[in-house]
Amino acid sequence: MSLAAMLKPRSIAIIGASSNKTRVGGIPMDLLLRAGFEKVFPVNPKNTEIQGRPCFPDIESVPEPVDLVLLAIGADEVLPNLERCHARGIPAAIVFAAGFAETNEAEGIARQEALSRFTKRTGMRVAGPNCMGNANFGDNVFTTFGTSFQPGDPAGGTALLTQSGNMCATVYRMARRAGVAFSHVINTGNEADVEFSDYLAFLAEDPATNAALCYIEELRDGPAFLKAAAAFRAAGKLLTVYKVGASEKGAEAARSHTAALAGDTAAYDAAFSAAGVARVSELGGLADLAYLHTFGSKIAGSACAILSVSGAAGAILSDALSLNGGDVPSFPESVQAPLRASIPAFGMVSNPVDLTGNLVNANDFLFEAVNLALSPDNIDVLVVFLPGYFLDRAIPQLERAAAEARKQIIVVDTFALGDRAKLGAAGIAYFDDFDRAARAICAYGAWKKTAAASLDKSVVSANWPEFPAGEPALTETAAKEALAAFGVPVVHDAIVHSRQEAEDAAARIGFPLVAKLVSPDVAHKTEHGLIRLALKHADEVGAAYAEMVAKAQSMPGVRIEGVTLEPMLTGGVEILAGVTRDPVFGWMLTVGLGGVWTELMKDVRHRLLPVNASGAEAMLRGLKGFQLLDGYRGAPKADVAAAAQAIAALCDAALAGGDALREIEINPLLILPVGRGAVAVDALVLLNLPAKAMEEAA
Amino acid sequence: MSLAAMLKPRSIAIIGASSNKTRVGGIPMDLLLRAGFEKVFPVNPKNTEIQGRPCFPDIESVPEPVDLVLLAIGADEVLPNLERCHARGIPAAIVFAAGFAETNEAEGIARQEALSRFTKRTGMRVAGPNCMGNANFGDNVFTTFGTSFQPGDPAGGTALLTQSGNMCATVYRMARRAGVAFSHVINTGNEADVEFSDYLAFLAEDPATNAALCYIEELRDGPAFLKAAAAFRAAGKLLTVYKVGASEKGAEAARSHTAALAGDTAAYDAAFSAAGVARVSELGGLADLAYLHTFGSKIAGSACAILSVSGAAGAILSDALSLNGGDVPSFPESVQAPLRASIPAFGMVSNPVDLTGNLVNANDFLFEAVNLALSPDNIDVLVVFLPGYFLDRAIPQLERAAAEARKQIIVVDTFALGDRAKLGAAGIAYFDDFDRAARAICAYGAWKKTAAASLDKSVVSANWPEFPAGEPALTETAAKEALAAFGVPVVHDAIVHSRQEAEDAAARIGFPLVAKLVSPDVAHKTEHGLIRLALKHADEVGAAYAEMVAKAQSMPGVRIEGVTLEPMLTGGVEILAGVTRDPVFGWMLTVGLGGVWTELMKDVRHRLLPVNASGAEAMLRGLKGFQLLDGYRGAPKADVAAAAQAIAALCDAALAGGDALREIEINPLLILPVGRGAVAVDALVLLNLPAKAMEEAA
Repeated sequence: MSLAAMLKPRSIAIIGASSNKTRVGGIPMDLLLRAGFEKVFPVNPKNTEIQGRPCFPDIESVPEPVDLVLLAIGADEVLPNLERCHARGIPAAIVFAAGFAETNEAEGIARQEALSRFTKRTGMRVAGPNCMGNANFGDNVFTTFGTSFQPGDPAGGTALLTQSGNMCATVYRMARRAGVAFSHVINTGNEADVEFSDYLAFLAEDPATNAALCYIEELRDGPAFLKAAAAFRAAGKLLTVYKVGASEKGAEAARSHTAALAGDTAAYDAAFSAAGVARVSELGGLADLAYLHTFGSKIAGSACAILSVSGAAGAILSDALSLNGGDVPSFPESVQAPLRASIPAFGMVSNPVDLTGNLVNANDFLFEAVNLALSPDNIDVLVVFLPGYFLDRAIPQLERAAAEARKQIIVVDTFALGDRAKLGAAGIAYFDDFDRAARAICAYGAWKKTAAASLDKSVVSANWPEFPAGEPALTETAAKEALAAFGVPVVHDAIVHSRQEAEDAAARIGFPLVAKLVSPDVAHKTEHGLIRLALKHADEVGAAYAEMVAKAQSMPGVRIEGVTLEPMLTGGVEILAGVTRDPVFGWMLTVGLGGVWTELMKDVRHRLLPVNASGAEAMLRGLKGFQLLDGYRGAPKADVAAAAQAIAALCDAALAGGDALREIEINPLLILPVGRGAVAVDALVLLNLPAKAMEEAA
Repeated sequence: MSLAAMLKPRSIAIIGASSNKTRVGGIPMDLLLRAGFEKVFPVNPKNTEIQGRPCFPDIESVPEPVDLVLLAIGADEVLPNLERCHARGIPAAIVFAAGFAETNEAEGIARQEALSRFTKRTGMRVAGPNCMGNANFGDNVFTTFGTSFQPGDPAGGTALLTQSGNMCATVYRMARRAGVAFSHVINTGNEADVEFSDYLAFLAEDPATNAALCYIEELRDGPAFLKAAAAFRAAGKLLTVYKVGASEKGAEAARSHTAALAGDTAAYDAAFSAAGVARVSELGGLADLAYLHTFGSKIAGSACAILSVSGAAGAILSDALSLNGGDVPSFPESVQAPLRASIPAFGMVSNPVDLTGNLVNANDFLFEAVNLALSPDNIDVLVVFLPGYFLDRAIPQLERAAAEARKQIIVVDTFALGDRAKLGAAGIAYFDDFDRAARAICAYGAWKKTAAASLDKSVVSANWPEFPAGEPALTETAAKEALAAFGVPVVHDAIVHSRQEAEDAAARIGFPLVAKLVSPDVAHKTEHGLIRLALKHADEVGAAYAEMVAKAQSMPGVRIEGVTLEPMLTGGVEILAGVTRDPVFGWMLTVGLGGVWTELMKDVRHRLLPVNASGAEAMLRGLKGFQLLDGYRGAPKADVAAAAQAIAALCDAALAGGDALREIEINPLLILPVGRGAVAVDALVLLNLPAKAMEEAA
């Protein structure tokens, strides 16, 4: 059901309304009246009039239809009042009260569960509890007890959506200082019913909104977020996100604060990347990106030309842009030559351009220099450093250039003396700090460049055999058989149950070969000596069989299902590919080079499922160690395309596995030279024990 | 010679003085007079009076002794006037004029060379040319045509030393906004005579200065910088550095701007680390560290306790501190329990502490919470987030706590509403941005923790044999022999000159063995098939001999000096260790794990020489892949101590090599299991060709 009644109400009742304009029941009343909102109905049995309006003893007495009710009452009174509001036909409510799940105490948790049951049963849309409420500037609706937003604040196209009241106020103030004006400000609270992504979906459709700034601690519904983000992309609206919890300590604090699902940091990264959001690493970045977006139509990327009257500023900006992922391409000779003609020999002209202090005497040249710097096709944006004492004199030329340019001009003035408003009126963006400017340009440009990764389709080409009841894992043999049905090439093997059988089978498979003990009870066999490599004769195979079985028999609780024999493949490069389930976003694929590369260097890539072959290949090519697959030091190139096909098949298998499947890891996936394919040498399939078995195990 | 006459002059003459207070010759006159500086002598043949003072036709006519002369005249007139000033006994001068080496043109370069010859001959100390001049606030001396510093600006303990006039003004303004007051501001210009580190050495001794903020593009004298930095450490003064050129583009722009020596980025990093400076990555960090230093005596490190009234702020601060290298240690139960007693269940108490909005009703608790949070021994600093609307009410309790605390309290107020001055008076630092606060705390805390790496002593234990004239490199055999004399263990080998000799020697050395062609003309032999591994029989050795010689004979210009045979060692881990010469800082050691680790993962560590064994061991332990040396996956631990000894011996050898030595690389240095040592398997010694030979080669 739409959130229009909540976010664009035509009439509002306030239960617990107060005459005191500093109290939770008085502030929204005051704000609404000052904003000229007509249909406000205070409800309070103790009063007949509040803030100059007639007050009603109960919600039933309100004489007109009500779109939205604000509950400025204690936690205990919330549910009975919501029932009466629902009976009265009111479609939406905002609950300010704390005392619900955020208390981490049984009573509050029970209260919130009851609230959730109520909304599921009735379909009434309820914001909060434990939220600060919202503001809709275009329609002059202030349904909040926060005081950072005031009637008379200008309305604009930016929405602010946060999971913290304090950060809501902080980002609002930062963005207002930059001149950003807002459509909506929304603080979500406990999200018992209306959830973060519900608001986001509303904003994607809202004609008044062209950008959303999000402060996120934890998301409760990953797929809904991805869907809302896709709607933002489709509408060409900016979606920019600050996510707290990038460090272990920060994640712990965020979880403690929200009591939401604990998604994995890597899964959030993968989700934001798949969703094509503009990610910022500092809270102030939200305000800076909103500010840039007000100029945004002329920014196509983050390849920058730099003009300055200071070689130092050019160098600092080059550093800051490069280190934040932007680019400072050198100019072609056709640009350098005319610059050189007017710039002294000590001024650099290749980009950055140092116009030198001589510009003081040749101010007219600035217009020409701007046009030259913007002319190459591979330049997206022009960054100009002009210290304040100089800037105001230069404004007329910058205005003239900006009027004609089809690319954005951005001024950096570390002296903070320039006329920001005048530049803004001319369509020129303004920053007073090198690094903030660089971070914003790079994040915004990257967002403009990135088409949202189109989520691949899953092709369910096979079925899993029935999973063995009560087992935590499939045997390796069963795992490889099942994966093979989905199209993952696997090493074929024999399973043997006696020394004699081993020696006979070995002769058929050929040498060298690998012997592995089969048991559902040992996950990492190398450490236990239960894998033997490079066995060259039937005798060696027989001896290995006997030793491994003896070793396994000595380990308590280890069932022995036999020993597999497989050919030992030589050449090729080993990688690992695995899928795990994130509690928020679901299946996530991890690929990396084997062993130390993953363990010590953390050289892995993550992506949410589904992933098709071209997605998998992009992940492999994104590894720092990809050169090892690509003919490093004269080795043959590995069959990356075949590996990507195998990884895509792994992903299909995961999606077909249902809730019983917990994790699949192929390690190693051996990638042979081009034309010879890739093959899963070992595979691990972990299952979810039913809840009962889990309890017993714990 | 001391810079006192330049930076603390008692009398000043201005050649080219002007009545126009906006011109280069008029501004310093105006500033000095407004500052109440008595002994100013304008010199200009066209005037008899300037700005109310008698003006002299030439320097010889000035009736009193002059400490410092300012030259506000064109580049051509500089040298003749300096000669006259010197003849007049004036010990110091500042040259404002551009038109010297910065022009990149022959005339200007020649002018600067003449200036340098003059100062070397006379001993006169000359600042600039092409500089903005200086200000000394304590003594009211303004010898600059910059207008960002004004008489009446407060004097303080911070010095600003920059290689860019614009950045000088920028950082000054930033720091003034934070309330930092200055002793000196110095802009160095072309540094034809007085060089960056000369000023730094002066400031290290200057009783008025307790901190220096440095903007550096390139240093001309690395050893002098290290010495001045050591003097700062010894005096307990803060030395904080922003170095431009961290990216390739930024480095290119900085070099173009200064025409100084192009030091390597890694060498600067190694030098700053050895010098124990506080490094900042954003220009604003200089101002923030100067600000923190005004509180600095209570800050011992960057392990932070965090108190907030917002779980979000606690999480954001935890992220920002952790990601910048700080720490947020969990509190012991003795701190958590009393906090828990007063904080609702939904407020985290383990650090960060979320006091929750309930603090509004229990303001007295803040004093107690601050004391609890500061009590653990492993906490260095307390960071408090109180939004502005709350902060002012809390100030009395913070003041009381700060008065008693032996650790620093830092307030972050993202609403920027708090009373910064009042907090400052109570000894409480204030930031209005999470990330700036975190970056400053972490950089400052790290600086406090770091004792400057005491530069190791070099032990010259041997001599190099005479280097072969005109050769670019030693043969491998000669290289290993020479390094062995310095104490580097090397693989012993035989050198053979015929197939028969090879087969005979091989039998004596034992199998498996490695054969390598010896030639001064091939640096990387593996690529050319001139190294053969794992030869197992005399026949194989003979065949390898014949094939390599044939291959080398087919390569034009390759002289063949024979073939070496050496035992092939198995087990152990290969690393590389090499020394190269940086043009600014001299010899620099690089160590890393071999092959892909270095090439693809850039997992290397750098340090300036001298390096002793404990320094080398610290570098090895700092590698991401160090676990590979430390018993990874059950492998035997490598003899790291022996490797460190070998690396220290390599460093001694480099320092003993004199100017003719260009580079030494041991690759691989094979580290055997503990107790079995480390051994140089291959070594490369590159020599500097004499200048003449270099020209011919080019």
